[in-house]
Amino acid sequence: MNEISVREQQVLDRIERARRRRPRVKEDRITLAHGSGGKATQTLIEAVFVDAFSNPLLDELDDAASFSIGGSRLAFTTDSFVVSPLFFPGGNIGDLAVNGTVNDLAVSGARPLYLTAGFILEEGFPVADLRRIVASMRDAAFAADVQIVTGDTKVVQRGKADGCYINTAGVGVISYPTKLGASSVQPGDAILVSGPVGEHGVTVMLARGELDIEADLESDTAAVHGLVASLLAATPGVRVMRDATRGGVATILNEVAKAAEVVDEDQVPVGTEVRGASELLGIDPLYVACEGRIVAFVSGDSASAALAAMRAHPLGASAAIVGRVKADPPGLVLLNTVFGGTRICDLLVGDPLPRIC
Amino acid sequence: MNEISVREQQVLDRIERARRRRPRVKEDRITLAHGSGGKATQTLIEAVFVDAFSNPLLDELDDAASFSIGGSRLAFTTDSFVVSPLFFPGGNIGDLAVNGTVNDLAVSGARPLYLTAGFILEEGFPVADLRRIVASMRDAAFAADVQIVTGDTKVVQRGKADGCYINTAGVGVISYPTKLGASSVQPGDAILVSGPVGEHGVTVMLARGELDIEADLESDTAAVHGLVASLLAATPGVRVMRDATRGGVATILNEVAKAAEVVDEDQVPVGTEVRGASELLGIDPLYVACEGRIVAFVSGDSASAALAAMRAHPLGASAAIVGRVKADPPGLVLLNTVFGGTRICDLLVGDPLPRIC
Repeated sequence: MNEISVREQQVLDRIERARRRRPRVKEDRITLAHGSGGKATQTLIEAVFVDAFSNPLLDELDDAASFSIGGSRLAFTTDSFVVSPLFFPGGNIGDLAVNGTVNDLAVSGARPLYLTAGFILEEGFPVADLRRIVASMRDAAFAADVQIVTGDTKVVQRGKADGCYINTAGVGVISYPTKLGASSVQPGDAILVSGPVGEHGVTVMLARGELDIEADLESDTAAVHGLVASLLAATPGVRVMRDATRGGVATILNEVAKAAEVVDEDQVPVGTEVRGASELLGIDPLYVACEGRIVAFVSGDSASAALAAMRAHPLGASAAIVGRVKADPPGLVLLNTVFGGTRICDLLVGDPLPRIC
Repeated sequence: MNEISVREQQVLDRIERARRRRPRVKEDRITLAHGSGGKATQTLIEAVFVDAFSNPLLDELDDAASFSIGGSRLAFTTDSFVVSPLFFPGGNIGDLAVNGTVNDLAVSGARPLYLTAGFILEEGFPVADLRRIVASMRDAAFAADVQIVTGDTKVVQRGKADGCYINTAGVGVISYPTKLGASSVQPGDAILVSGPVGEHGVTVMLARGELDIEADLESDTAAVHGLVASLLAATPGVRVMRDATRGGVATILNEVAKAAEVVDEDQVPVGTEVRGASELLGIDPLYVACEGRIVAFVSGDSASAALAAMRAHPLGASAAIVGRVKADPPGLVLLNTVFGGTRICDLLVGDPLPRIC
């Protein structure tokens, strides 16, 4: 009576195999790497959050969740911002928080409409700084044609935050007929990057003043909704888009990779200043955060139309086709290096640039 | 030609009066009181946030913003949670974060549907604690019939947060035909409170262990969507509802007050433990946060139907009619005290209970 049938044993085996496949958080305590956007973040998300909250919308793990209400297809997303320092050349935590959520909606194929803003302020934070941040949020919202419709403010004691943290959530309407998503990527697809990578990350890094490097750099923080709209209008061949924030372009390439992706390192647009600073810092610009650049996967036959559409937009003037999707080997991002070799471009381990957004 | 007409002067005078009426933040730096939900919070919101972001949806300053997309009327809200300690009798920051946003949607007359979850974690935070919090969020989402569909995780260095902060944002669908809002409150309306007040706030206060008071108390954290649905189904006379969180019932009474409100102190349900602890702490339970109680304003003739509907629901068993709206004096909340006197029940100045949610 207690014996297990062959069929039951098969089911148990399958469950056991699935359990073993599920990533586990090996650390007892949270590390900065869990916030890097790389391998540790992905493990934490899958082993803790998806494991508990699992539902079909969450499990997609796209930049925004999408669902239908009434006759409308909506996108819904959130991001918290903990960038340090709060002010840096080209922007501050305020426009970053607006652009970040606008961009998550835009790359999901949605027209961004409404944002929330939640502030966690540290006791003693200068009201004048808050005003500057809020003014930047207002300007960024105006530029992105979204409204900040509701908010929340919490204050914690001195030493329990770092000045100001901001969360934004956003809602948009999806009108693009094709369902965008990493699962629609196919061998033969082209991979496009909309502009020079790593400018935001290197700018913030240098703004900390801990390094004796000077560079004429500004964050690339910008709302990409217009660029995305141009791209979507130009071709029906767009498979999936992502905005390259934490972990940079390399992290996106890995998130999307199920087939193989072959990327030509010398095709990736990198500005001189970022290239120079990255070499001094010993970091790879491919892994450095942008806040106004997108990576787009498009069908092979629409690659040149997609590139032309991007280049016609001010934010995409330096856009480039950086690689192709191949059938094998599955799940790998291969980089043809500038030196003529090929190496695997893997997910980031650790976090060389904490609190970049 | 440069002379100003009488009419123009009148307009200028009106603008000048409005400018003077707009509250100003007098402090140079953020204080804990700015997070209290009371007078300082209201000033900060109006002088900094509304001043910058002003749009018709935000300016309503309801618990949720509402707008139409396609044929559907949606509610959208956000809250950040910084409660200390993270775990307390009856709940933790996780279910608090889910219930808080569910409740903001529910009292806006919306059926809560989808939530986002944004985590700010402090380096070194125990993964086991995160798992407990996430499990509570899962259970609370299940109980409230909502899905957590997208999220974000950031990690900050040790000493730049306090373990774990959570932001949730939520979207719901409004199906109630009447527009709810403080502006629809009229003289003659009845004021209902759905249950004993202050249990969450006093529980969290005592859980800090700084006071030598023991009480058999649990947080009242709960999702009120079912209670609200019962109330809305019972009568078309509901004017406006709010969930009594930071600043407690008294803050809501003040937020809604444009006409006068007369509240009978002895009609407000307060449990023995909360009454005892509040007396020892020298605080007024009317100002102490609940996380599962609502205040409802209903037309005078629907008061008894509303009360019966509340009492028929498990979360409203101790509901009571606590007061009435009068024509004069405008904008004041008057409290008939248990001692037979009358006093003004004003907005909170300062924050006797910081980081209660």
